Amino acid sequence: MTSIDLNSDVGESFGRWQLGDDAAVLAEVSSANVACGFHAGDPRTLRRTCAVAAEHGVTIGAQVGYRDLAGFGRRFIDAEPDELAADVLYQIGALEAMARPAGVQVRYVKPHGALYHATVDRVDQARAVVEATRAYDPTMAILGLPGSALLAEAEAAGLRTVREAFADRAYTREGQLVSRRERGAVLSDADEVARRVVRMVTDGEVEAVDGSVVKVEADSICVHGDSPGAVEMTVRTRAALREAGVEVRSFA
Amino acid sequence: MTSIDLNSDVGESFGRWQLGDDAAVLAEVSSANVACGFHAGDPRTLRRTCAVAAEHGVTIGAQVGYRDLAGFGRRFIDAEPDELAADVLYQIGALEAMARPAGVQVRYVKPHGALYHATVDRVDQARAVVEATRAYDPTMAILGLPGSALLAEAEAAGLRTVREAFADRAYTREGQLVSRRERGAVLSDADEVARRVVRMVTDGEVEAVDGSVVKVEADSICVHGDSPGAVEMTVRTRAALREAGVEVRSFA
Amino acid sequence: MTSIDLNSDVGESFGRWQLGDDAAVLAEVSSANVACGFHAGDPRTLRRTCAVAAEHGVTIGAQVGYRDLAGFGRRFIDAEPDELAADVLYQIGALEAMARPAGVQVRYVKPHGALYHATVDRVDQARAVVEATRAYDPTMAILGLPGSALLAEAEAAGLRTVREAFADRAYTREGQLVSRRERGAVLSDADEVARRVVRMVTDGEVEAVDGSVVKVEADSICVHGDSPGAVEMTVRTRAALREAGVEVRSFA
Amino acid sequence: MTSIDLNSDVGESFGRWQLGDDAAVLAEVSSANVACGFHAGDPRTLRRTCAVAAEHGVTIGAQVGYRDLAGFGRRFIDAEPDELAADVLYQIGALEAMARPAGVQVRYVKPHGALYHATVDRVDQARAVVEATRAYDPTMAILGLPGSALLAEAEAAGLRTVREAFADRAYTREGQLVSRRERGAVLSDADEVARRVVRMVTDGEVEAVDGSVVKVEADSICVHGDSPGAVEMTVRTRAALREAGVEVRSFA
Repeated sequence: MTSIDLNSDVGESFGRWQLGDDAAVLAEVSSANVACGFHAGDPRTLRRTCAVAAEHGVTIGAQVGYRDLAGFGRRFIDAEPDELAADVLYQIGALEAMARPAGVQVRYVKPHGALYHATVDRVDQARAVVEATRAYDPTMAILGLPGSALLAEAEAAGLRTVREAFADRAYTREGQLVSRRERGAVLSDADEVARRVVRMVTDGEVEAVDGSVVKVEADSICVHGDSPGAVEMTVRTRAALREAGVEVRSFA
Repeated sequence: MTSIDLNSDVGESFGRWQLGDDAAVLAEVSSANVACGFHAGDPRTLRRTCAVAAEHGVTIGAQVGYRDLAGFGRRFIDAEPDELAADVLYQIGALEAMARPAGVQVRYVKPHGALYHATVDRVDQARAVVEATRAYDPTMAILGLPGSALLAEAEAAGLRTVREAFADRAYTREGQLVSRRERGAVLSDADEVARRVVRMVTDGEVEAVDGSVVKVEADSICVHGDSPGAVEMTVRTRAALREAGVEVRSFA
Repeated sequence: MTSIDLNSDVGESFGRWQLGDDAAVLAEVSSANVACGFHAGDPRTLRRTCAVAAEHGVTIGAQVGYRDLAGFGRRFIDAEPDELAADVLYQIGALEAMARPAGVQVRYVKPHGALYHATVDRVDQARAVVEATRAYDPTMAILGLPGSALLAEAEAAGLRTVREAFADRAYTREGQLVSRRERGAVLSDADEVARRVVRMVTDGEVEAVDGSVVKVEADSICVHGDSPGAVEMTVRTRAALREAGVEVRSFA
Repeated sequence: MTSIDLNSDVGESFGRWQLGDDAAVLAEVSSANVACGFHAGDPRTLRRTCAVAAEHGVTIGAQVGYRDLAGFGRRFIDAEPDELAADVLYQIGALEAMARPAGVQVRYVKPHGALYHATVDRVDQARAVVEATRAYDPTMAILGLPGSALLAEAEAAGLRTVREAFADRAYTREGQLVSRRERGAVLSDADEVARRVVRMVTDGEVEAVDGSVVKVEADSICVHGDSPGAVEMTVRTRAALREAGVEVRSFA
């Protein structure tokens, strides 16, 4: 039986400020990218989120980011590699501590926001993330974009890599994501998204914006949970996968 | 042969701002209370500090504090117990990650500044620190003031406790520390301090401010390193202990 | 014609995290307690909020708080008076800058959260808030609880004082607020709240939790806007005041 | 009589962490670039610094920076222009409040660290700084590098511009600063620095690294005060200017 991993961002509340419906998301996905406090996620939130993830048997990953609460980690920060590596190491350990009372461990690292984008091209920052992950635990996986510097560095360092595709993003005919600045970059029709995900998983392909069909090799599909519509989209995607005989299961 | 532990605060720089001479301190003490990022200590500093501590065979403790860089953790913050416990857990895990690449682990927890003082009397905050420590690793020790709520809660929770005395602080005839707001609360004569520490360790007593002699039961002596004079005081204290046939050795 | 001021908290979003429906609130109230960045409110939010307040002719006040984003300013911090005064001064000036491009000024100061509560009893912290306000602009008003140290210090310093009552809070027979920890402390029936406010304004009295009637002398009524229900309550309160022939108008 | 402005960074301590000898610097310079809390400078420090500057008759400028205490504002942050403008506006107003009790005002804006460098080339960020300054007070000056986007935007917006040269930096034959990454980029001989500054001011020229002589048009010379050697350099520079008949006087 075919299986696929669904990953989603959780733990992104901060103190008084609530964001996303973590309980609903954790009931649907197989992997949780839990914020680590630098771009979002106060420790009490993180501890609760890890506990709920553990209850659902959802694999926990560290969603490491730049130290930037004001910018939610979405602004590139030109950190030096050894500084960035230390920041990432710190975040992984902090999150592992939040998971430990629930009897589980952090199993992978996925950079967040601007750090995710930076590590697609910038080898120095990609290497810093990989170095930190490896220094913490060489059995951890790195989750990222196929073809990114991040996955190349991870592979070179002997870490397991997990390639992800995006459920609700449009692709170019070259198999790249359409920039969010362009129209049509983000899909909003839940049924269409569900169908696309099934096709990605069962046929390894997706229809690009120009109507051409491109290959997508993915070990995990990223879904969102920061709005009621996003949760609904995830519910339908999971249902469509089930109907297509695909099991949702963590890569770990 | 008698032995005693010497502990000191390190890792309290933050980015551009340097504080203390960690290298000099780590060459003298047997236990390092390493800041964890909430009151001081950026991750790069913490990683380096843990590496130097490991080189010297110095035991690493997590100096957990309130989230208060502006106040250096010296201002009481009325945090809720579950919030405080999560903050402490987060800090312990973060520091452990910084120690791991050096092949060592965090072996104890010592609250910093206002949290140290709060956990002397406030059972709810003491319990939060103990709960977090135990949830992380029940073999960790808690370092604190004899008679404090912190050590009482730690003992009740089955954690190892380490009682500390202060090298450069005056004591009342009741065996309490003289408040820093009073004159003579802090001693500055290095030779006097060295003699006092030897007496504490070998005879279990100290001369109080009124000339009376009071009992001091200590497993560890706290020394300082945030000024050149403080480092010098530690060097002399260690030398005096050696002459008195006392080995400086971690409790761990 | 009788008039009363309605004040409400706004500007409490922070970056990615949205809180409250400021536009809806600013259409109803006459005074806006705008956060100043220490407990909430990133600069872009504050600038927009001040612009909308100015459009509606709503008076702007600085809702100063402890430096505590993680605790939303709801945790007491034992700051030294000169430190607190400097923090308050900084916040007032920062907010004034956000208001200036809209052609308006900050006209009053209202402490937020734990600082509001601390300045009811703690003279040192009350005096710090007053000193900072006076140093910035001696024509500014201080908004606070009748009988508080804050208003007493403000009056002694020659500042204008504005006494506030709470639309949705229960009162004791002594005229104090029922603690939020007790049941029935916060009222949720919009019509009941509207009737109570009208009675406070027109008759200067409110029914206490034990059924007795107590005097309430208020220059301003605090209403909330951080939930759809809260906005609705404010809309009804304003309508009830209109029907009772009371004009909603800033004290300034 | 010829005159020149000397400017230096002050107010860069933060809470427990002290940096620079502000009192010594403020006795020598005519313009103080005071940090505003985003990259350094807690409010109590800023208030004291402004008071000392006012005592010495030193003109106060707002040294605005990215929100980045951990990086001391030295890391580029890819902030959106309207976000950056709001951040700058906030900082100017906050600093003005700290200056007001001393009876003085902020008279100019100088970006700090990575923001200084970013606004040399990036028109969007330069424009954001200028827009914020103008929105706050169109009579304020902008201090920056000759030829920078910052000064071009400031001039286009009708703001007064102040061109600065650097006392202790080497210049290329094109009149650019030698990158700090290259050897010899920073000069350390106090007498040589003093002679160079006198030549810059009296002859409008400086010897470049290759021995050629290049033109330097400066309204203000930047000197440093974050080390004992830096303060000594400033003292000698001021003395050399006096001997050469040049008065040190603010541009304002």
